[in-house]
Amino acid sequence: MQINSTRLLDNLSELAEIGARTDGGVCRLALTDEDKISRDWLLKKMQDLNLETHIDEIGNMYGIRKGKSLQPLIAFGSHLDTVTTGGKYDGSYGVLAGLEVINTLNENEIVTDGSIALINFTNEEGARFAPDMMGSLAVSKPELLKEIWESKSFDNESLNVKSELQRIGYLGDAKVNQFSFTNYLELHIEQGPILENEKLQIGAVELVQGIYWTEYVFHGAAAHAGTTPISARKDAGLVVSSLNLFLRKLSGVIKGQLCTMGLIEYYPNVVNVVPERVKVIIDLRNPDKELLKQAQEKADQYIKEISESHQVSFDRVEKVRFDPVPFSQEMVEAIEKSASGLNLKFKRMVSGAGHDAQMMAAICKAAMIFIPSINGISHNVKEYSNPEDLINGANVLLNTVATLVSNV
Amino acid sequence: MQINSTRLLDNLSELAEIGARTDGGVCRLALTDEDKISRDWLLKKMQDLNLETHIDEIGNMYGIRKGKSLQPLIAFGSHLDTVTTGGKYDGSYGVLAGLEVINTLNENEIVTDGSIALINFTNEEGARFAPDMMGSLAVSKPELLKEIWESKSFDNESLNVKSELQRIGYLGDAKVNQFSFTNYLELHIEQGPILENEKLQIGAVELVQGIYWTEYVFHGAAAHAGTTPISARKDAGLVVSSLNLFLRKLSGVIKGQLCTMGLIEYYPNVVNVVPERVKVIIDLRNPDKELLKQAQEKADQYIKEISESHQVSFDRVEKVRFDPVPFSQEMVEAIEKSASGLNLKFKRMVSGAGHDAQMMAAICKAAMIFIPSINGISHNVKEYSNPEDLINGANVLLNTVATLVSNV
Repeated sequence: MQINSTRLLDNLSELAEIGARTDGGVCRLALTDEDKISRDWLLKKMQDLNLETHIDEIGNMYGIRKGKSLQPLIAFGSHLDTVTTGGKYDGSYGVLAGLEVINTLNENEIVTDGSIALINFTNEEGARFAPDMMGSLAVSKPELLKEIWESKSFDNESLNVKSELQRIGYLGDAKVNQFSFTNYLELHIEQGPILENEKLQIGAVELVQGIYWTEYVFHGAAAHAGTTPISARKDAGLVVSSLNLFLRKLSGVIKGQLCTMGLIEYYPNVVNVVPERVKVIIDLRNPDKELLKQAQEKADQYIKEISESHQVSFDRVEKVRFDPVPFSQEMVEAIEKSASGLNLKFKRMVSGAGHDAQMMAAICKAAMIFIPSINGISHNVKEYSNPEDLINGANVLLNTVATLVSNV
Repeated sequence: MQINSTRLLDNLSELAEIGARTDGGVCRLALTDEDKISRDWLLKKMQDLNLETHIDEIGNMYGIRKGKSLQPLIAFGSHLDTVTTGGKYDGSYGVLAGLEVINTLNENEIVTDGSIALINFTNEEGARFAPDMMGSLAVSKPELLKEIWESKSFDNESLNVKSELQRIGYLGDAKVNQFSFTNYLELHIEQGPILENEKLQIGAVELVQGIYWTEYVFHGAAAHAGTTPISARKDAGLVVSSLNLFLRKLSGVIKGQLCTMGLIEYYPNVVNVVPERVKVIIDLRNPDKELLKQAQEKADQYIKEISESHQVSFDRVEKVRFDPVPFSQEMVEAIEKSASGLNLKFKRMVSGAGHDAQMMAAICKAAMIFIPSINGISHNVKEYSNPEDLINGANVLLNTVATLVSNV
């Protein structure tokens, strides 16, 4: 049994037209008109496949294909929302490959023992509303639903998640914990260079590395660049520059550690004014929880020292604290077995990015399948994966689901 | 002969109401409605003092008090425009002290040998239109007038200097080079901490230090913070951080050197994306032209090396190249003599900031008088100078002008 390659690739192309950017990328921010159009498109596809469709209170979409019994209930999917400079594959690929899996089961008139569910999660990217992985977070922690509903749009403070769900017609009546999933499987592009570099076709993801985001606002003193002696300056920018170089060194010292300073805001940000205030958010990641904590502690210790030496004070806010999430060994083995059965080259690996699967891991057995991303490029209009890899991944998903739904 | 202290301070308070910010500062950007109101206010004051008023093609305002002959023509003044986060004294003080000088001469019915001219220059700050020191630049280089007229507003590309001058009614018919000034004297707050720290009352400014602004745009590669190994990164932000620390060291190595990185723009400026592109403008100043050139060369050499080591390319644009401007020794001596005659403590000094006086120095004898700025704060709503210092400075201006207008 194999998926229909042409139909998968055609669906990817068709979906990419919704929110298409002129530069070849896709912009389909969560709960915008473009998101609604893509959701309507998916709902129609689900209905055409005779799935039982549900929308829950956070807008997650479910297409359920019943087997001989409702349990075990094997879920798979991903998300249709993108970042502003998004590509065609991040999220979309997992949903459309899932659709293709169901299409293939239907065409082959397979009656499964358990049931399966295709899911499109709301706002995985977090590019318009915080936090990211919102839909799967609500499923794993229903007690957070009301707080999540109140989250305001970054572009317009008068809009929140609930009002935008209502506006686009996707505030559903299914409870976020209505379904009892036994497994969750997510197929995704790697978003990194490892599979390509090692000439492998499939990654069996056994762990999502931990992610810590910490915001620091450094308070120096605004001063005239032409008249303030160096000794009289409290330059918040120099603290941040020193920190950036320290973080780079830290990445080389602690095993598996990645440190990134991707966001900086200067105030007043004027050529001839020593910066009074600088905001940064630092992104620390490590597959090992203890090492990640150690990296954060070393960074905090350094920040304390360097700030003091520049007579700069600071505020600190922990924005994200995701510890590493191990996936189900049983599911990872099932993925490896499927890849092996298809004669594909594979390895176990760690996910560097966060995914809905890590939220689902809190309530059921979960794992992920990766395929190569060319040059590791993602969250970028140049994001690309080869058709053969896209097809291989969907077949691994098909075989793994087929195994799980009859064997669990 | 002494100026009227109360009237000077009252005028400063009254003017500060035009464009007043709620936090105590002043926002009166060049050629805005607030600038127009302050200009109308000044024009009325000039007319009340029976001055012959002129507006030139770049909007500079002149109030001329004729003596026995038109020459020598001793000019003084400053500017009424402010930065966004401006205070009450930068620019305004020089104009209003000049007004007070004329008021005092009138009240004492002094008939001078030569004539005097009070000037309010257009757009000294450069906070809404580039370049700064625009009005005095046009006076010293009339051949640039047409180019300057075309300069677009930072906040609205459809507006330029000429259209905004017309809109507020200050596109005058006097030629920018209509008047033949023999001297230009500018009274200003120091905008630095030196006079206050040394407990002095007057600075006789004999030099404006050189100012070089250079814009660099560094091109790295956007990459996912969670999935891109350190070895595969081209982080434009690390180049800029390294440069900032290098510049700080350079300030300690080259005599009199000040280096500032006040403006940074990251793109895409997202927490979990390695910066693809970073723009900075660096501000280098030195009273010595050769040392300033040396600092710029060292910075450029470092930038070349550090960019290469991070596999980052860059574009470079020279935005400002003002070499140091020496003032007239004769005028500096006249200022010292006036300060000495008033029993004030003074010293010769260098201006760290740029001023209209440096443009005027190209066409006549020029110099500046500084008074203390509390904590050296300027371009900041907390800018402050003590009343006694404000009064002292105006009396030094009065006496220096009186000497020049009868002795030159």
